[in-house]
Amino acid sequence: MTAAQTAIALALASAAPAAEPDKKAPVGVPRVVLAIHGGLGMAKEDLTPELEKQIRAKLAETLEAGRGALAKPGATSLDAVEHAIRMLEDSPLFNAGKGAVFTHEGRNELDASIMEGKTKRAGAVAGVTIVKNPISAARAVMERSQHVMLIGRGAEVFATKQGLEIVDPSYFWTLPRWEQIQNSWKEDKTGQVSPLRTLGEHDWGTVGAVAVDADGNLAAGTSTGGMNNKQFGRVGDSPIIGAGTYADNAGCAVSCTGHGEYFIRFAVSHEINSLVKYQGLKVEQAADRVVNETLKQAGGEGAVIALDAQGNYSDAYNSDGLYRGYITADGKPTVLLHER
Amino acid sequence: MTAAQTAIALALASAAPAAEPDKKAPVGVPRVVLAIHGGLGMAKEDLTPELEKQIRAKLAETLEAGRGALAKPGATSLDAVEHAIRMLEDSPLFNAGKGAVFTHEGRNELDASIMEGKTKRAGAVAGVTIVKNPISAARAVMERSQHVMLIGRGAEVFATKQGLEIVDPSYFWTLPRWEQIQNSWKEDKTGQVSPLRTLGEHDWGTVGAVAVDADGNLAAGTSTGGMNNKQFGRVGDSPIIGAGTYADNAGCAVSCTGHGEYFIRFAVSHEINSLVKYQGLKVEQAADRVVNETLKQAGGEGAVIALDAQGNYSDAYNSDGLYRGYITADGKPTVLLHER
Repeated sequence: MTAAQTAIALALASAAPAAEPDKKAPVGVPRVVLAIHGGLGMAKEDLTPELEKQIRAKLAETLEAGRGALAKPGATSLDAVEHAIRMLEDSPLFNAGKGAVFTHEGRNELDASIMEGKTKRAGAVAGVTIVKNPISAARAVMERSQHVMLIGRGAEVFATKQGLEIVDPSYFWTLPRWEQIQNSWKEDKTGQVSPLRTLGEHDWGTVGAVAVDADGNLAAGTSTGGMNNKQFGRVGDSPIIGAGTYADNAGCAVSCTGHGEYFIRFAVSHEINSLVKYQGLKVEQAADRVVNETLKQAGGEGAVIALDAQGNYSDAYNSDGLYRGYITADGKPTVLLHER
Repeated sequence: MTAAQTAIALALASAAPAAEPDKKAPVGVPRVVLAIHGGLGMAKEDLTPELEKQIRAKLAETLEAGRGALAKPGATSLDAVEHAIRMLEDSPLFNAGKGAVFTHEGRNELDASIMEGKTKRAGAVAGVTIVKNPISAARAVMERSQHVMLIGRGAEVFATKQGLEIVDPSYFWTLPRWEQIQNSWKEDKTGQVSPLRTLGEHDWGTVGAVAVDADGNLAAGTSTGGMNNKQFGRVGDSPIIGAGTYADNAGCAVSCTGHGEYFIRFAVSHEINSLVKYQGLKVEQAADRVVNETLKQAGGEGAVIALDAQGNYSDAYNSDGLYRGYITADGKPTVLLHER
């Protein structure tokens, strides 16, 4: 436990009992400083041992590196979130940055958003095709523009002017995703679902991160290639503040993945924050209620990771699995795929 | 005090103290069925008598027509919201559809969203340049696509395929807005604020509507040209479900206008809904708290209109004024600009 976390725990412990439920973990329980997800992933039976090994290793490496970014002097939760998401974007294992799915028109269109819990500053980009790390473009929008959200060519021109790394759209191309879209095209033509399709990854498989720094400030971020075979111009929840991403020091930091349309309609990340702030739920209760009651009843498949300023972490998913992991200030990373 | 305000005051005075506040107005009090706004508008001293007359007449006409749309057999609150917003989009008096402001690049880029409180279905478009009525495109996305949000060219191709009315971008051009952007360009070059600028309308001046139908179902919608001189690709709160627009029968229907970046960061429409649902606030309390406390403290200028399923209506603004109006099932329309 860091000095600041100890201070928070002491402050909480000395607070008089109140009607508001107790949100802290028992004293001595290690608090999570960073959690990440890599989407719902593929069905357990389709995951080869080799691929599983690669995914687990990349998630663990990302958690270690993200914690390292957080430990640097002056570093914030925002730095850890950006660092972790950049690593997942750069890995072809996930549907964000390199390795993104293709639109119905055979292009990669990327969305991302980031938010800071103390100031509630936020930034987002949608429909970008040439920015290597959309999460960094989202952060640049937050920190270096007067706007919160930039889309399409406007976002690309901004990212270019800001000196972010620009790539040819072909950078995002990967063989498995190309086979996946070709397969979808075949299905669209014949109306028959190909057996190959079940071997492909989930149509949705966003990446995201939530973190808390030594000052007790939260941050959250999300990045995605969207849905395989999506109509061009379609935007899911990932770049929508309040849907795919939200952070509020008085509530929690949330990053979502899943069938984005449902996450927008139920403003999932902000809803979880509201349940924590206004209903006094713990993050695990709030995450569970929204994912396993609200979304499930509506037919919305998906998952969330959530973290409060005291380091209480929870994930919830109503799907087969969720590629995810978390790390404390001094422990080993914990990585989970299909196991609860 | 207007009749509706008196009714609300009476309802407040007669309410018995309880843990769960009674959200119903007393029997016999006329309930609002439709409310609309036309943005923050220009400063009172800049509004000529002739222009004021035109704006009041258009708002009254829209309220009457919207109520008419609601009274048709089988019509829903969604029909009333779409009908009202189409009329405001078609009028050059407001910053939506014809009469939209220009981007820094001299184009009109339009955003809109719509939502149904019973099912929480929603639709949105952003950055469209050739769709005559963006609110109808948003509704088409909701009802005839698998998606919630389409942006840019993708949204335009979809609207075209759906048979919506497509116009040349020059359709949206109006002289006052063109003078406004030319003025901004001059200011950008010289760094001097022109005296003409103070004569121009507010940079933000979105339109929106909230309605409740005979079945007690809520709907909300918002449409805008965004901010004058905005960077191309910038998206404000209007097309963001949870920011500019939200509708939930268990809470309320909300449409926002103002400095959109703040409305996204504080997820204003969903926040008001959360305060009604989870804190038991009345719509007027929730709207007031978010607009006059949360947003004001953060420096976010703007306004909201909110309506619950019992017909309790409220507007709140922290600006000079708000072009707005409401109507009951059988009364005359009430139109307000700068008067509280």
